[in-house]
Amino acid sequence: MIQEKESIGKSKWDLDTPALVVDLDKMERNIKAVHTRLQGTGVGVRPHIKTHKSPAIAKMQIAAGALGVCAAKLGEAEVMLENGIDSVLLTTVNVTASKIVKSMALRKKHNGFIQAVDNPQNIQDLQDAAKAASIVADVVLDIDVIKRSGVAPGEPALALAHMIDKMPNLKFCGILAYDGTVQHVVGFKERQAQALKTYEPIVRTYELMKAAGLNMEIFSGGGTGTYDIMSVVPGFTDVQVGSYVFMDRQYIEIGGANNEKVFDDFEPSLTVMTTILNNYHPGRLTTDSGSKAFTLNQPSPLVLGEPDYNYIAAADEYGVITFEKSNKSYIVGEKLEIIPPHCDPIVNLYDVIYGVRNERVESVIEVLGRGKSQ
Amino acid sequence: MIQEKESIGKSKWDLDTPALVVDLDKMERNIKAVHTRLQGTGVGVRPHIKTHKSPAIAKMQIAAGALGVCAAKLGEAEVMLENGIDSVLLTTVNVTASKIVKSMALRKKHNGFIQAVDNPQNIQDLQDAAKAASIVADVVLDIDVIKRSGVAPGEPALALAHMIDKMPNLKFCGILAYDGTVQHVVGFKERQAQALKTYEPIVRTYELMKAAGLNMEIFSGGGTGTYDIMSVVPGFTDVQVGSYVFMDRQYIEIGGANNEKVFDDFEPSLTVMTTILNNYHPGRLTTDSGSKAFTLNQPSPLVLGEPDYNYIAAADEYGVITFEKSNKSYIVGEKLEIIPPHCDPIVNLYDVIYGVRNERVESVIEVLGRGKSQ
Repeated sequence: MIQEKESIGKSKWDLDTPALVVDLDKMERNIKAVHTRLQGTGVGVRPHIKTHKSPAIAKMQIAAGALGVCAAKLGEAEVMLENGIDSVLLTTVNVTASKIVKSMALRKKHNGFIQAVDNPQNIQDLQDAAKAASIVADVVLDIDVIKRSGVAPGEPALALAHMIDKMPNLKFCGILAYDGTVQHVVGFKERQAQALKTYEPIVRTYELMKAAGLNMEIFSGGGTGTYDIMSVVPGFTDVQVGSYVFMDRQYIEIGGANNEKVFDDFEPSLTVMTTILNNYHPGRLTTDSGSKAFTLNQPSPLVLGEPDYNYIAAADEYGVITFEKSNKSYIVGEKLEIIPPHCDPIVNLYDVIYGVRNERVESVIEVLGRGKSQ
Repeated sequence: MIQEKESIGKSKWDLDTPALVVDLDKMERNIKAVHTRLQGTGVGVRPHIKTHKSPAIAKMQIAAGALGVCAAKLGEAEVMLENGIDSVLLTTVNVTASKIVKSMALRKKHNGFIQAVDNPQNIQDLQDAAKAASIVADVVLDIDVIKRSGVAPGEPALALAHMIDKMPNLKFCGILAYDGTVQHVVGFKERQAQALKTYEPIVRTYELMKAAGLNMEIFSGGGTGTYDIMSVVPGFTDVQVGSYVFMDRQYIEIGGANNEKVFDDFEPSLTVMTTILNNYHPGRLTTDSGSKAFTLNQPSPLVLGEPDYNYIAAADEYGVITFEKSNKSYIVGEKLEIIPPHCDPIVNLYDVIYGVRNERVESVIEVLGRGKSQ
């Protein structure tokens, strides 16, 4: 039922729905904008492909000047490396025997693969696997920011950095530190203050490692919410921006450096086309797009052109819209275009993204990393 | 990175994670149990495959005595019909020109395809498409129960039934009515009372149609939460049970006819295997399974063997477990087995389900309808 090649040239309004659509002009401007803004700051860009899971979009990011990409899962890293992306930093540890072997096999095949680590046993296991594979594997140390992943900053991190550095089959390449809870703080100044405060122990850790003579070629972190904040962080090399390519309602509402209310550094390029199935009840519409089309993320999806619509995607198969004011009355079969709440997990529901220019489908972008949750 | 054939024979504890696993003994007992319970009641079973999206499981349901299956989306119906399932009732209307043509083309190819309708324009459009395809298409009328889909019960429904009945290229086959909000009412007696009360206007509609001499061979509705309640509904032909094959935390907690606290008519057969990535913080574990593995459905996923664990799947890529009491202390790399909150949308995240017997992988079940949201 997927419309592939035959969709080229179609109006986005004629696609079977739910359909995930990206406005190519907007996405291309977003991909360019991050480099324009960061030019001369010394901060590079290492986009996180967990957002789009598409080698085609990763290639556009590399062409625009990205240093490489980040991946969240071994399966995503493999999809990127096998489809023309040469440099992939895997931000998640691999801690089982099976995945450690696969990770080092991937490194043997692709020189540009970099693996995150955060505990001593895992460092020893990676060393053993790298030795068995006759390689010297690039690794970065993940530093704990939000009690989720990584080793504690300061001396514990320094000790592990030295441990890696002494392993004959591992190359210590630096650190990563993701401040996940800061990214969606509303208000630029508040976000800036929290981001820099949160990073203080990370910076001290960086300074300790630098003073110890360790290789600090990578100091990676941040995201779309803090991309323009990190340049004052000493030694920081690159931001792991993900959502900036698509944007979503969660990010639009945090405000930016130049616009207090709307984070408009990047344009919302990703939308879901949906169809009205039922309009029998006043102040209410049913659509064909529920939680299997939008996820349950909040705030609710945003219907373009209908600011008073409350879109409820709570049911698996149906969306329900309630409203008091409507700009027009819709008949069954009409379509709506909708900005999703949170782009990353929504893309993970779709096999393809329709690339649209001037409302016409120009390309069908395969989400080759979809479902690669392992 | 997906482990296909090479997974056969492996212990489920050795699968790369997150991995979706079904205990085949439990699932087979569930598939049998619904027929055993309903034997002699006059109520048939038409399982909803939106839950498992797998022709392989649909075949087991048919072999156990199901009348056919229901599908929620045209793409799902196509996957079933093209993979050996002969009778598919599509419970959702198709209201765009493109999908109406596809729906009638599917009916032309497969006699066992039944399409739901709920509005007059759509009936006319289906008639036109069926005529153009030189077929007489089976249709059922969807009756409104929860203000989401369907036409109002009573005279409005009767008028549409007559309209369908008069169409030369459509065959009126009866009605469907899904009481979605009743399914998860906690407590069997309360659920029974609400289900029967909710169905009163539907039953009056059935009686009107029956008295008018219309073909009422299908009167389909209900679900896992009301499967053993519907036999007292006059004319009711079949329950659209879905979740009963897998169960999930949402259904376990509603209670059953024989057990007030636990709905144990069916056994939880579906679990997610997950790996512990980080244990640095007391009372806290990080896993590799977040909202892309579990969805954001509530209540939280249930860790087998650790009743005091609070599993938070709020982040896309990571799960975080917090606890005060733990039955053992886990090291990094150890695995946990987890009952998901809500089975339907979780299955939609995975390409395969590992079929396990006595903890060993016996089959790799392809979720061929995954992502068929159109």
